[in-house]
Amino acid sequence: MCDLFGIEFPIFQGGMAWVADAGLASAVSNAGGLGIVAAMNMPGEALREVIQQTRQLTDRPFAVNIMLMSPHVEEVAQVVAQERVPLVTTGAGTPEKYMAYWISCGIKVIPVVPSTAVARRVVRNGACAVIAEGCEAGGHVGELTTMALLPQICDAVEVPVIAAGGIGDGRGIAAAFMLGATGVQVGTRFVVCHESSAHTTFKQKVLSAGDIDTITTGRRLGHPVRALKNPFTRKFAKLEWDNAVSDAELEAYGSGALRLAVQQGDADRGCFMAGQIAALVNREQPAAEIIREMFSQAERILSEGTKWVV
Amino acid sequence: MCDLFGIEFPIFQGGMAWVADAGLASAVSNAGGLGIVAAMNMPGEALREVIQQTRQLTDRPFAVNIMLMSPHVEEVAQVVAQERVPLVTTGAGTPEKYMAYWISCGIKVIPVVPSTAVARRVVRNGACAVIAEGCEAGGHVGELTTMALLPQICDAVEVPVIAAGGIGDGRGIAAAFMLGATGVQVGTRFVVCHESSAHTTFKQKVLSAGDIDTITTGRRLGHPVRALKNPFTRKFAKLEWDNAVSDAELEAYGSGALRLAVQQGDADRGCFMAGQIAALVNREQPAAEIIREMFSQAERILSEGTKWVV
Repeated sequence: MCDLFGIEFPIFQGGMAWVADAGLASAVSNAGGLGIVAAMNMPGEALREVIQQTRQLTDRPFAVNIMLMSPHVEEVAQVVAQERVPLVTTGAGTPEKYMAYWISCGIKVIPVVPSTAVARRVVRNGACAVIAEGCEAGGHVGELTTMALLPQICDAVEVPVIAAGGIGDGRGIAAAFMLGATGVQVGTRFVVCHESSAHTTFKQKVLSAGDIDTITTGRRLGHPVRALKNPFTRKFAKLEWDNAVSDAELEAYGSGALRLAVQQGDADRGCFMAGQIAALVNREQPAAEIIREMFSQAERILSEGTKWVV
Repeated sequence: MCDLFGIEFPIFQGGMAWVADAGLASAVSNAGGLGIVAAMNMPGEALREVIQQTRQLTDRPFAVNIMLMSPHVEEVAQVVAQERVPLVTTGAGTPEKYMAYWISCGIKVIPVVPSTAVARRVVRNGACAVIAEGCEAGGHVGELTTMALLPQICDAVEVPVIAAGGIGDGRGIAAAFMLGATGVQVGTRFVVCHESSAHTTFKQKVLSAGDIDTITTGRRLGHPVRALKNPFTRKFAKLEWDNAVSDAELEAYGSGALRLAVQQGDADRGCFMAGQIAALVNREQPAAEIIREMFSQAERILSEGTKWVV
């Protein structure tokens, strides 16, 4: 997988909206992983600027994550091709519409998939790998957990599978390999890395989170989101069960909350998206140190794996 | 762990209500795993009979799973002691109230724990091991996934940790070991073993289930349950979002649905509890074959683990 993507360690940094900027992506790529820039709801020209910024900070491969529900998706789909971005990951939908075009431009496409049916479909359409993301991940999530989803995706498709969701240290990497993955994607742990521009309050909240400190909201709207418990998510959860609150009101209540968390550290009104392994993340470190630490732990555990063999 | 419990393979069979009877538990124990009899809502004397039945079918260790919300919990707590059951697992609450008594009777106590706080508490009270169960499991579930919960429980306590939830084949066992478990608990795959008395319809539903065929209902009531999607669970999910339906009505709607599934195979009104890995379960096999197959696959994968080491 490392050869396929031109990276040193089989680790992707999650394309987290507002967090995954040029600084973070280039730091991860420079450290030998695959840095990913989030296109989120950006207009095309804004994304072009971020891509060019990233290129100034690293000469290694990086990817752009395209959020398919973005109002500017047509524009950004063009921009990644014009800018010859080597890799595109996608989320919040299936990218079939753009795949033939991207592939014809030499872009490798790696969709995030929540089920075997979607995995098969995107591979038929030319995906060179897929990211199997379990619902323990932070942000927008599906229903299946990494432990259940990953082996099923590996059985369903012949391409490399990257495991995402619930991976916070070397144990998670080793487990993902056992389940059939050839690489991992890590989000929450990179939120608190030195090179992440997430607000100090966000970082502190992740660093101090315990095991039961995340909650999934938005199931009623059909797009569940995992975030840290706080006044915002608690109120959202309450409104969600209330039939007097319309879906539109619920959507409106959630709108802009992630930006408030990442940029302003608004502890009450922000939506601090993080995965269930936030509790395993206890130190702010440089991206390179995180990667080295995770893989040396994984290698140690994998070497000891034979002790279980009778 | 095998020495601690007097078993050959570090695998527990889940204490599934209505399914985990003397026939299934003895088959698993005879195959070298730990068979578990479910006390569910049984009166004490009914449980005593099942225990004695199990003893006639196996001379190996087995456990009783005590559901702490049972109306007969006081009685069954006595019966397991009187019958000198070697091991007790517990679910649906924390067993502190009974632990000193059981331990004084020589019973090893192994609670199912949904969080690190509960794990620490039961270990302080003498639990000799804990079962960390992720929400991909079938039946009553917590919020954390196996991938996220397991390493955190392993960090929190010094006793052996058994992984449950999402384990359907040798890959799951190998992954659980990497995350720090010393054993696994398997439910769904044993539902369809030859020695399981679950209704043919239940078995068929598990055998034909796909990856997205389970759903969690009951969150509004504070005790979520994972089961296969069918008219019963779909209606429950709908009622759950309806404020005009009281909690009592919702409880009443769910009452008895599991028994209808297991004993009568009622495809419409039954609650077919199963985990997300139901899709990995494709054959009805003897319990002994399941265990051998899972561990030989796990051993093979673990032996190959070093290929990942650079």
